[in-house]
Amino acid sequence: MSKKGSREERELVHMFWNANCAAMRAPASGGATKKPLPDIVAGNGRTYLAIEVKSTSKDRIYINSDKIEALHEFADIFGAEPYVGVKFIRKKWRFLNPKILPKTRHNNYKLDIELAFEKGLDFDELLKKSKQTKF
Amino acid sequence: MSKKGSREERELVHMFWNANCAAMRAPASGGATKKPLPDIVAGNGRTYLAIEVKSTSKDRIYINSDKIEALHEFADIFGAEPYVGVKFIRKKWRFLNPKILPKTRHNNYKLDIELAFEKGLDFDELLKKSKQTKF
Repeated sequence: MSKKGSREERELVHMFWNANCAAMRAPASGGATKKPLPDIVAGNGRTYLAIEVKSTSKDRIYINSDKIEALHEFADIFGAEPYVGVKFIRKKWRFLNPKILPKTRHNNYKLDIELAFEKGLDFDELLKKSKQTKF
Repeated sequence: MSKKGSREERELVHMFWNANCAAMRAPASGGATKKPLPDIVAGNGRTYLAIEVKSTSKDRIYINSDKIEALHEFADIFGAEPYVGVKFIRKKWRFLNPKILPKTRHNNYKLDIELAFEKGLDFDELLKKSKQTKF
């Protein structure tokens, strides 16, 4: 019954709670409700995050455009910042604004490890950025 | 595999989406993570709500104090307003700030139908109140 990527989602949820940020995973049956749910919603009273979680043992990953559209839709309505959170094997988490992801010829999105580490935020930066939003 | 109260939670999630408010249920395995999760998190860009959902065919319902403490804890960290959303059979939804619920001798909380309809908000008021917070 476990959802693909569950382990990484749980890991990230723990990281948020440890950083004094409340986080909740979407229910496994989330897709069945046809609502555009991200994998994780997190908030710390200052910033609200909607996160699509991806992990791979390769050095690039493709993301279906419907996932990115759903992420934007949820984030817009809820009032959250949309991020793709990506875990490349044996690397640290990186977080990217989906707007900077290049599109493939088939209209999906490509996220490679170089882009993730050049343009993405690490976990501390993701939360530090949130603080800077306020002060 | 369905969680107690699932039907009411799904109904309420649909009501939020129909009112242009994004809502997500907690995963059924939420309790296993030992994180203080509410049943539903909702947001519309102005207001963020953490909701504990209760339903009953009787005219009162008791709520364990640990549920209410978890609701407050999540709401405080996340940055959301805590509410108990209650559905008495054949009545409309009511939403109560948990702070106004009386405690029982056993240190739990009691919510009866009179209090719900005297002091609680209906669904439109819950969202209208949210607007008034901003403007």
